[in-house]
Amino acid sequence: MPRIAVVGAGSWGTTFGKVLADGGAHVTMWARRAELAQEIHEGKRNSEYLPGVNLPRTMTASHHLSEALEGATQVYLAISSQALRQNLKAVRPLVSSADVPIVSLMKGVEKRTGLRMSQVIEQELDCDPARIAVASGPNLALEIAREQPTAAVISSTSRETAEAVARRARNSYFRTFVNTDVIGTEFGGVLKNLIAVAIGIVDGVGYGENTKASIITRGLVEMTDFAVAQGAQPETLQGLAGLGDLIATCQSPLSRNNTAGRLLGQGYSFQDVVKQMNQTAEGLGSVAPILQLAREAGVQMPIVEQVKRVLDGTMNPRDIAPHLTTDDERPTGERTQNEHSDGGGALRRSLKRAFDQLRYGGGSASRD
Amino acid sequence: MPRIAVVGAGSWGTTFGKVLADGGAHVTMWARRAELAQEIHEGKRNSEYLPGVNLPRTMTASHHLSEALEGATQVYLAISSQALRQNLKAVRPLVSSADVPIVSLMKGVEKRTGLRMSQVIEQELDCDPARIAVASGPNLALEIAREQPTAAVISSTSRETAEAVARRARNSYFRTFVNTDVIGTEFGGVLKNLIAVAIGIVDGVGYGENTKASIITRGLVEMTDFAVAQGAQPETLQGLAGLGDLIATCQSPLSRNNTAGRLLGQGYSFQDVVKQMNQTAEGLGSVAPILQLAREAGVQMPIVEQVKRVLDGTMNPRDIAPHLTTDDERPTGERTQNEHSDGGGALRRSLKRAFDQLRYGGGSASRD
Repeated sequence: MPRIAVVGAGSWGTTFGKVLADGGAHVTMWARRAELAQEIHEGKRNSEYLPGVNLPRTMTASHHLSEALEGATQVYLAISSQALRQNLKAVRPLVSSADVPIVSLMKGVEKRTGLRMSQVIEQELDCDPARIAVASGPNLALEIAREQPTAAVISSTSRETAEAVARRARNSYFRTFVNTDVIGTEFGGVLKNLIAVAIGIVDGVGYGENTKASIITRGLVEMTDFAVAQGAQPETLQGLAGLGDLIATCQSPLSRNNTAGRLLGQGYSFQDVVKQMNQTAEGLGSVAPILQLAREAGVQMPIVEQVKRVLDGTMNPRDIAPHLTTDDERPTGERTQNEHSDGGGALRRSLKRAFDQLRYGGGSASRD
Repeated sequence: MPRIAVVGAGSWGTTFGKVLADGGAHVTMWARRAELAQEIHEGKRNSEYLPGVNLPRTMTASHHLSEALEGATQVYLAISSQALRQNLKAVRPLVSSADVPIVSLMKGVEKRTGLRMSQVIEQELDCDPARIAVASGPNLALEIAREQPTAAVISSTSRETAEAVARRARNSYFRTFVNTDVIGTEFGGVLKNLIAVAIGIVDGVGYGENTKASIITRGLVEMTDFAVAQGAQPETLQGLAGLGDLIATCQSPLSRNNTAGRLLGQGYSFQDVVKQMNQTAEGLGSVAPILQLAREAGVQMPIVEQVKRVLDGTMNPRDIAPHLTTDDERPTGERTQNEHSDGGGALRRSLKRAFDQLRYGGGSASRD
């Protein structure tokens, strides 16, 4: 039985560990806290994060990283995106073998640098990108832990790595597809949060399924245009890591982004929402930096623009709509806005420049 | 003020008439029943189909077709898809002017012939296809009648016609985009019913948002592959007439297809469902003919196949999943299945042949 390590025993890490164990591997979880490691190891439960879920007998756990990683043929990372870099420093000496794939289960960008998770891994482990894979898709942890059928995508610049990971990360209720577009796969998981806020606003106002379906459809166009300008393939955004994740997030009443939007839609101010929720929803913090990059690159994101105006208090949430009210009179095609500007080359270069500035010059991406 | 006629005063026809009137036109509805025409004309209400909705003062109505169509610069049709051909015989002599666009608000195919609505119009009015347009998108009538923001698409082989129609059919809560892919636009409205049945089954079983998001995402791939084999553009299915309509239909608890699926998911047999619902949901009747055509053309539709097995009683609804359980072991890309078979040419020809047989040889498309 192959040995696999999962670093991080929150709800998603533990759920993914269960997916791997149910797929026929021996899984060792690493938990920071000794009590949690013990509960998983001995009691086959993670009652804080996955109440009521029985964990497989082939799942063990340790709070010693070296123990968890020993003999692992694949390593999965499920750590908070802002704590990843620090944790990787401890992981690095323990995963030196070049043929052990490192798989990111995380979504988001590092605030200080604007880097995607796979980029942080590449920097800190100083390894070949072909060894890194990312998993994404509609991933509501508790539903998967309850073995409800789900499809997901495993992405790596190396198709061989993606397939090796996908072959392990699948079982009767969890089906994985593969692609080689890491950029699109990771950006899907970031951008969906902005559209989920818009859907939350619409929920809060009291609009129905039509409005939401319109915003999801047009929001996916905005996500695609932005990601393509970053070098992504449009098909990736149409798939599980874009559309799939977007739909699940928008429909989940537990999503923080959805909740934040709903409060805004009900008329609470941005300050009220932040106070009420204790922590900022990731989508709120990304609105300004993403819009700035989009503007610099000439990518139009009318829905995200409207979210910003609601956040700023300059727009009544009731007026949010799947289009800009300032649009001109001439009917346009569904895909015209950003395609007409140029072939994408200049766009991509300009966006890359803007991101580089953010990364190395500090700046608005670190704002929350 | 331009004069516009809407033929058919059910919930969707009346809602669309309101959209047009709120966009600045004088709209005359045609209702078959004199009492309904009178209620709309005098009381500005359609209490049977749109309870509680006030209709605009620029909307009038008549039960005389000639009166409704007189002086109309655009004619919209919202009749039951199976009664369209018969009604068109009366419409034909009254809309002879070649520069009056004819707009289909209907979704579905004619059972006897397998023809799309625009094809029936072309045959019966014997007119230039460039004069015909179709409207589609996420169109839950009551929500639009309540002026909740919605986006829709107007399609015609003539971009000029599409734009002329889109310019009229828009207002502050209804935004129209245009395309020239009539085939894709119409097939989106037909195929989404099959996926809505699958989502209903999943609802009935009790699975959550993850499973539904996976099925919507993978179902859209099946819809796209099928429609492209018919000559559609894939972008159309990614847009409002495909994805947008699919999401709204899957989320609407009022949808007949969703209800039928839900009953199946709860364990009722196909016969029970038909009995319980009084009328067959359109999606149920299309499963077998669509699958037959797909099979002949080499298009894989694993989700629709599973719906059929549930309908046939050979599969437990709990086992429905966003993939075939008989899939081979090797992980595939999200778009590989049907792309690998051929470049699409042979596929399209074979599918066209199969459809022609259905149309002119009678057969399974007429089954319900």
